[in-house]
Amino acid sequence: MPLSEFEIIARCFAPIAAPGAFGLLDDAASLSPPPGRDLVLTKDMLVAGMHFFPGDPPAAIARKALRVNLSDLAAKGAEPIGFMLGIALARETDQGWIDAFAAGLAADAASYGLALFGGDTVSTSGPVTVSITAFGSVPAGGMVRRLGASAGDRLFVTGRIGDAALGLRLRLEPEGELARLLAPEHREALLEAYLLPQPRTALAAAVQRHASAAMDVSDGFVGDLTKMLSGAGLGARVRLDRVPHSPAAQAAMAIDRDLESVALCGGDDYELLVATPPGRANDFVAACDAAGVPASPIGDAAEDVAVRFVDAEGRTRDFTRGSFSHF
Amino acid sequence: MPLSEFEIIARCFAPIAAPGAFGLLDDAASLSPPPGRDLVLTKDMLVAGMHFFPGDPPAAIARKALRVNLSDLAAKGAEPIGFMLGIALARETDQGWIDAFAAGLAADAASYGLALFGGDTVSTSGPVTVSITAFGSVPAGGMVRRLGASAGDRLFVTGRIGDAALGLRLRLEPEGELARLLAPEHREALLEAYLLPQPRTALAAAVQRHASAAMDVSDGFVGDLTKMLSGAGLGARVRLDRVPHSPAAQAAMAIDRDLESVALCGGDDYELLVATPPGRANDFVAACDAAGVPASPIGDAAEDVAVRFVDAEGRTRDFTRGSFSHF
Repeated sequence: MPLSEFEIIARCFAPIAAPGAFGLLDDAASLSPPPGRDLVLTKDMLVAGMHFFPGDPPAAIARKALRVNLSDLAAKGAEPIGFMLGIALARETDQGWIDAFAAGLAADAASYGLALFGGDTVSTSGPVTVSITAFGSVPAGGMVRRLGASAGDRLFVTGRIGDAALGLRLRLEPEGELARLLAPEHREALLEAYLLPQPRTALAAAVQRHASAAMDVSDGFVGDLTKMLSGAGLGARVRLDRVPHSPAAQAAMAIDRDLESVALCGGDDYELLVATPPGRANDFVAACDAAGVPASPIGDAAEDVAVRFVDAEGRTRDFTRGSFSHF
Repeated sequence: MPLSEFEIIARCFAPIAAPGAFGLLDDAASLSPPPGRDLVLTKDMLVAGMHFFPGDPPAAIARKALRVNLSDLAAKGAEPIGFMLGIALARETDQGWIDAFAAGLAADAASYGLALFGGDTVSTSGPVTVSITAFGSVPAGGMVRRLGASAGDRLFVTGRIGDAALGLRLRLEPEGELARLLAPEHREALLEAYLLPQPRTALAAAVQRHASAAMDVSDGFVGDLTKMLSGAGLGARVRLDRVPHSPAAQAAMAIDRDLESVALCGGDDYELLVATPPGRANDFVAACDAAGVPASPIGDAAEDVAVRFVDAEGRTRDFTRGSFSHF
């Protein structure tokens, strides 16, 4: 049996409350962005059985719920400030689960410098549902838009693409060929990438300073890049051979070539797609290098063309299912 | 079959998007409070079967989800600005339901002057779940606290107490004595009060200007007032005969005296509990009158005493179950 709502708040969530949240003993919190800065707001909702596995470690669920929001903030060039947490607990949720969830939340709040501004704890007859609203800040007027690219802009993707989607495949087919043939360290790396995204918070300043447009890769590289370009009336010849993959993802694709489209179209990468004006490209790459995250050039935005994905031989690849939809 | 997530957003939610939400075509929105003001943030989560009936009209569900958040803002003295919407749609949710939900949301957004700043639309194997984060603003440093009262402060409750809890009773016992004996117009009034709260947005300025402490009555008059006072180390002799009830609630309590504790301890009133310094009491009452909402004096906050509820004959009433918990 879990504690009451008020006991849960006092025990689990009050320790990470923001100063403006009054120990979570109020119905609201107050907040102002730092002088000269705008707030940036984002909200992602995660449902057990849909966005994570009900049996995942509660600490990992909490951290993933927070990190997918941090990923959105990073893509907008925003430095994180804090968040609000809505959680619907399932009938079978016990206090041990809640304590572990809160511990994961507190660990990430500490490592990303986030404060909790309040929220709501309710119960549901359905699956555990976590709804986080996260806040960050940018210089006034400086939120980087998804649809801000112009023709001629350079296109980049950060980090590596495909690990999380391949990790999900391993979760869905634990006895499958991939699980059987992949080396244990690669299997672990892919599973971990799915369980615990690494939001590119360290790149927020570089994005804010240099990007003309950006978004995070949550629904798949192919679909998200298509959205970012075609929504702005642009296209590109995207070089798939320049899209970086981890050794684990490369090993997986060597086992089964068809997994390349899983890697490219699957979701949950939480890497950043970034467009920069040509004159800013070098500075952006240097800033990413300085932050320890590679930024790979994958093409240039252009007018009057479609978004095309071409392989090393110059052949256009068609992804019939361009984007993973959580919905 | 509902439309896709992106089609739903474009069709249903984009029309009420805030300017800073970029037509909901981005992953985040930007927002700054007006100069000299703080943002006030609140978040309430509603689950079908827990906070509303699955068969309630979708427009009413949307409006209730928004209004319970507006009620929190009003209690903090905050003028509303906008909100973010997270919604988990159930397997059986069809497009007609979503359209009606969005129409209710748009109607209330228009009448309360709110803009939509974004959110997330997902699906769930469980009940429909709505998570709203609402934003308002107060003069810098001016958010009215729940625990801000001092000894000697006058205590008020706005509007009328008990209608929604009695309306819920009618929903739960549609063939019960109350439903059978109550006049149709009273029955309708109570049912409507449960279905569609009236947040006291019109009183936000009066609260901000005059209150030392305030909270909204969501979990029951008795329990919430006890929280507001005892959390501040205060008590009071609360005059139950001064707690206002509507003609419909009076008629219900005349049918069954036991319903008085339902009215006083039930939830969902969304009236305001307000403490004012003695010198501000008259101004507060006048401001409420000017806004067309009665503010009833129910006692004075005091030190070194418990929160006691006394009836017209001066007898202390004991409410064994002081507060309705949604949880």
